[in-house]
Amino acid sequence: MLIVMDSRADAAAVRRVIETVEQMGLKATPIPGAQRVAIGITGNRGTVDPTGLENLPGVLEIIPVSAPYKLVSRETKNERSVVRIGGVEIGGERLVVGAGPCAVESEEQTLEIARRVKAAGAVLFRGGAYKPRTSPYSFQGLGLAGLKILAKARAETGLPIVTEVLDTETAEEVAEYADCLQVGARNMQNFSLLKKVGRLKRPVLLKRGMSATIEEFLLSAEYILAEGNYDVVLCERGVRTFADHTRNTLDLSAIPAVQRISHLPIMADPSHGTGKRHKVLPLSRAAVAVGADGLLIEVHHKPETALSDGPQALLPEQFADLMNQIRALSIVMGRSA
Amino acid sequence: MLIVMDSRADAAAVRRVIETVEQMGLKATPIPGAQRVAIGITGNRGTVDPTGLENLPGVLEIIPVSAPYKLVSRETKNERSVVRIGGVEIGGERLVVGAGPCAVESEEQTLEIARRVKAAGAVLFRGGAYKPRTSPYSFQGLGLAGLKILAKARAETGLPIVTEVLDTETAEEVAEYADCLQVGARNMQNFSLLKKVGRLKRPVLLKRGMSATIEEFLLSAEYILAEGNYDVVLCERGVRTFADHTRNTLDLSAIPAVQRISHLPIMADPSHGTGKRHKVLPLSRAAVAVGADGLLIEVHHKPETALSDGPQALLPEQFADLMNQIRALSIVMGRSA
Amino acid sequence: MLIVMDSRADAAAVRRVIETVEQMGLKATPIPGAQRVAIGITGNRGTVDPTGLENLPGVLEIIPVSAPYKLVSRETKNERSVVRIGGVEIGGERLVVGAGPCAVESEEQTLEIARRVKAAGAVLFRGGAYKPRTSPYSFQGLGLAGLKILAKARAETGLPIVTEVLDTETAEEVAEYADCLQVGARNMQNFSLLKKVGRLKRPVLLKRGMSATIEEFLLSAEYILAEGNYDVVLCERGVRTFADHTRNTLDLSAIPAVQRISHLPIMADPSHGTGKRHKVLPLSRAAVAVGADGLLIEVHHKPETALSDGPQALLPEQFADLMNQIRALSIVMGRSA
Amino acid sequence: MLIVMDSRADAAAVRRVIETVEQMGLKATPIPGAQRVAIGITGNRGTVDPTGLENLPGVLEIIPVSAPYKLVSRETKNERSVVRIGGVEIGGERLVVGAGPCAVESEEQTLEIARRVKAAGAVLFRGGAYKPRTSPYSFQGLGLAGLKILAKARAETGLPIVTEVLDTETAEEVAEYADCLQVGARNMQNFSLLKKVGRLKRPVLLKRGMSATIEEFLLSAEYILAEGNYDVVLCERGVRTFADHTRNTLDLSAIPAVQRISHLPIMADPSHGTGKRHKVLPLSRAAVAVGADGLLIEVHHKPETALSDGPQALLPEQFADLMNQIRALSIVMGRSA
Repeated sequence: MLIVMDSRADAAAVRRVIETVEQMGLKATPIPGAQRVAIGITGNRGTVDPTGLENLPGVLEIIPVSAPYKLVSRETKNERSVVRIGGVEIGGERLVVGAGPCAVESEEQTLEIARRVKAAGAVLFRGGAYKPRTSPYSFQGLGLAGLKILAKARAETGLPIVTEVLDTETAEEVAEYADCLQVGARNMQNFSLLKKVGRLKRPVLLKRGMSATIEEFLLSAEYILAEGNYDVVLCERGVRTFADHTRNTLDLSAIPAVQRISHLPIMADPSHGTGKRHKVLPLSRAAVAVGADGLLIEVHHKPETALSDGPQALLPEQFADLMNQIRALSIVMGRSA
Repeated sequence: MLIVMDSRADAAAVRRVIETVEQMGLKATPIPGAQRVAIGITGNRGTVDPTGLENLPGVLEIIPVSAPYKLVSRETKNERSVVRIGGVEIGGERLVVGAGPCAVESEEQTLEIARRVKAAGAVLFRGGAYKPRTSPYSFQGLGLAGLKILAKARAETGLPIVTEVLDTETAEEVAEYADCLQVGARNMQNFSLLKKVGRLKRPVLLKRGMSATIEEFLLSAEYILAEGNYDVVLCERGVRTFADHTRNTLDLSAIPAVQRISHLPIMADPSHGTGKRHKVLPLSRAAVAVGADGLLIEVHHKPETALSDGPQALLPEQFADLMNQIRALSIVMGRSA
Repeated sequence: MLIVMDSRADAAAVRRVIETVEQMGLKATPIPGAQRVAIGITGNRGTVDPTGLENLPGVLEIIPVSAPYKLVSRETKNERSVVRIGGVEIGGERLVVGAGPCAVESEEQTLEIARRVKAAGAVLFRGGAYKPRTSPYSFQGLGLAGLKILAKARAETGLPIVTEVLDTETAEEVAEYADCLQVGARNMQNFSLLKKVGRLKRPVLLKRGMSATIEEFLLSAEYILAEGNYDVVLCERGVRTFADHTRNTLDLSAIPAVQRISHLPIMADPSHGTGKRHKVLPLSRAAVAVGADGLLIEVHHKPETALSDGPQALLPEQFADLMNQIRALSIVMGRSA
Repeated sequence: MLIVMDSRADAAAVRRVIETVEQMGLKATPIPGAQRVAIGITGNRGTVDPTGLENLPGVLEIIPVSAPYKLVSRETKNERSVVRIGGVEIGGERLVVGAGPCAVESEEQTLEIARRVKAAGAVLFRGGAYKPRTSPYSFQGLGLAGLKILAKARAETGLPIVTEVLDTETAEEVAEYADCLQVGARNMQNFSLLKKVGRLKRPVLLKRGMSATIEEFLLSAEYILAEGNYDVVLCERGVRTFADHTRNTLDLSAIPAVQRISHLPIMADPSHGTGKRHKVLPLSRAAVAVGADGLLIEVHHKPETALSDGPQALLPEQFADLMNQIRALSIVMGRSA
């Protein structure tokens, strides 16, 4: 941490800051400059929060220096992690594509889509049984019945299941049926839920919150690792900006940014990241080219009557076309798909 | 809902859209223009989601028209609601100020601050026993022990208690001790928690999420009302933008915006809304002048050693000054404080 | 400037950074911490740009420390500046209200509105002769003819004129007629224009750009002062965010933020800051309460047929009501209006 | 345009809106719904601005329907345009890469970099002679001397020159030396400059503003076409968001979004779009994969001493690696590079 002093601060003000820092058990190193003094603070093991120093007389600004995450960091573990969902490895050589409907609506719908995405080359099946919906009057998901349908889809296709967990109360139930627990963007800072999935023995797919910085995103992952669950896959799914031509702004730079700091694998979700069917294909290609470890794609065979997120779902034949394009790109990227 | 057709769409494309709409049980009214045709859709009672129509050939755009909220709307109940927390009315003639530390740290700290804010004129006491923290290594709150300290503070000062509820599991415990359950910004779209507090018999203070539109904010309130709990107070606490001179950007226009659409009372939180002690006073004045029904202010007698959010806490004497300024403004606004 | 090293950087990497810094003629102070080394850099008088050091091996991050502005800073001149437009002082005891139509449309329209806003208490008259319009097909202003109409309005009412200057070519023409040159939000980083108005002998009203940080805003003002023109008034007029209930998000925290760093006066423009007539009054009150030195308000006697920005213009009688409310608030704020 | 009425609006309010619309010479079509009435407005040829109707009693909201651009739209010209810069076609089969330093610093530096980027496969040379800089104390470019150096670089390498034009006064001078006039992000809504380059006989590269919507971006291009210059290339270069791990957020979805609406070619600038050297390569790949017609890349052989934007410049050998990766991707995309 660095304390920047006002250029008008006198020696007494500087002295007072140094003394206060030392009373907190930390070490202060003054750096006198032409215009102003800065004071480096070291020795903090996370037990003291010195940001309150900002209000001492003569202090202009406090600048944090150390990154607050530990277990997720490449400074702790340099080699990239591979997470296994069912038999599928994320973060390895193979580009992993998970696909399926936004919501489980019925057994027929789910099985039909599962067959189609498997045929096209998906290796994970995604679909929501518990659905977070902006409005209380929207379809909230089939719940336990939906989980059972997902299990049937797995039994028939062999595809491991990724499905969302909404709260601590139903987390264990979801973990019974799912191969991977998805924590959605709206719950990225639901810390009770993060701790809960950290204690369950299931890989977790953690989506970036709509207004989360990379630091906040990694700290949410840190919550899960800190409880003992190291099988975390991150997912960029678009952030909220002023731009109105897509539902969210897919921030593909987050992928190399995360990979530079963290050893955890990271996927992209161009379906939610754009919210528009005709942008899913180009942004999927871009996500592969930027270096994502995988994609999550929404597919529906009758999107105009889907109970949620119809506008962004691909038709099965569009998904097959996407898989073909992705495969060709993967080879250039030194991967298979 | 309005469907806007591409100017190059032919009569067959228009006909197909109209037929699809009618098959969904809705009514389609074509509006031929000089450049293009638009199609008004009516008769939807919320059971059908026609946004998937966006992908039909010749469709340029789909524009939603009806607001999706009902119970929170002034179209449903025109007169403004008054919510009672303990004996304190929010939304009435009196401007309500709640104050206290970010976190309950100890009995001494809590009681000392409670006495000081009461002496200065606060009518609600706020403080966190369960704390949502970005990092798993930050102080997470005293939990049940903190709730008991809050109850002591109420016993001694008579101030009703507002404290945060983090998850469905501890919600009932919090409701036993608190006069008002705060749902924080990070949980604004934790729909399981919203449903839970909707079923408890306690007023709820719902904070706006960091990237929530007014529509999403009101729909989250709608979740609580839809479960039968009509005692909801909204709170603007700053949104996330590119601006870096404050921790969040306090969006004061949200207050008249909410008041125009909804009958629910709305407060402002200039402490989180700015994250900087020296901006709390001016933004508090602004919040009163814009028409907020109340303020939530963080106060700490030793902010430089506070376990959380020290940089934004006012000293008790600064809070007393704030109360004096607020009182003078309230009179001009036709209120008391 | 502070260089933060990766925790895995070895002594050789640290040494190489220090040597490179010293070769640039700067001084390097290493600050060894428990986890990593940071290196303070001092002695830079603005002639060297060391941000390229970020790419040296072992460097994690570069953190700028010194603020790059000088003439606008309170570190240079602590007492707040007062700028005179015609006979009107901005930044003094009096709260200054400038009002008028978005665009000069005709002599009748302009004079009628000028009389009405003067009667209500405005002390500056605003109106655009050259208009920046998003679309080339929108009304672009009357140009020189508009400037002459503004001069007539001044002759009749005595109100000094504030009007926008769009480019270097017409700047002198505008300066002949206007008492104050407005540089609009879209031109805040039109540096050729900033230099040009810096060389003209007219006060400048500089509006904050739609996505400008406070630092960028002040640096744009610095361009004008650096050319010798110290008569600069700043104006907060809303920034662009995801929020869609207003046209822009009026960032009132910018006002105390600017006042803390700079001696220049600052006004607020709630008309553009909200873009909605029914939000102008509450946000005007808030701007006064937060400490703005003045307000700019759009007024039109026939807003439904205005050639630009009709939705945000107040009717003259609404403006009179606003003036009454503002006056009452000003007294509480220790000002007159 | 669609007018949405409040559900409480009575028949008289609806009638008054219809009458006002008809007095403006437009046609009103009421669409009665279950909850509320909407009124479609047609017949507007851009001469009337009906947004002021928002303030009539009973009106809830006004929703614009028609896109305001014409010449840039695929509704006007469906086949994609190809723009020639020197002998280089943008928007054709070939993926076009322009490269060079941020600023022309000296003849040696410029020629050295020009040779290196040509050798690696760039077909356009970019570099600034007039530089827009946030601070007045930063290097402002060599001006005319810089243009002459660029001309030498062209003479030696044969690469057409893309360089920025900052204002109307120097536009003709720049047009004498440059093959393509770049309008920077900060000038995207400098409408005087747009009109000026619209009258010059040189292709224009228009960069998206930092907070511009796609509609605003295309309307700025429309200004240029409306003056008679159809040779416009668009460029996505990142927008401003809360995200702080890159200097800007490169919004790659803008590329398919523009291509869907407009026939103009569009490039991407991953150097400014990320501001970080180590993110230029992955985001360049992503831009190609999303379908961009070309890339603009900053290259410097001594980035640690560059006079501007050193942190984002690639070394010549890194650029050569980028070209190799881009070429492989182009083939998959059905293009050459």
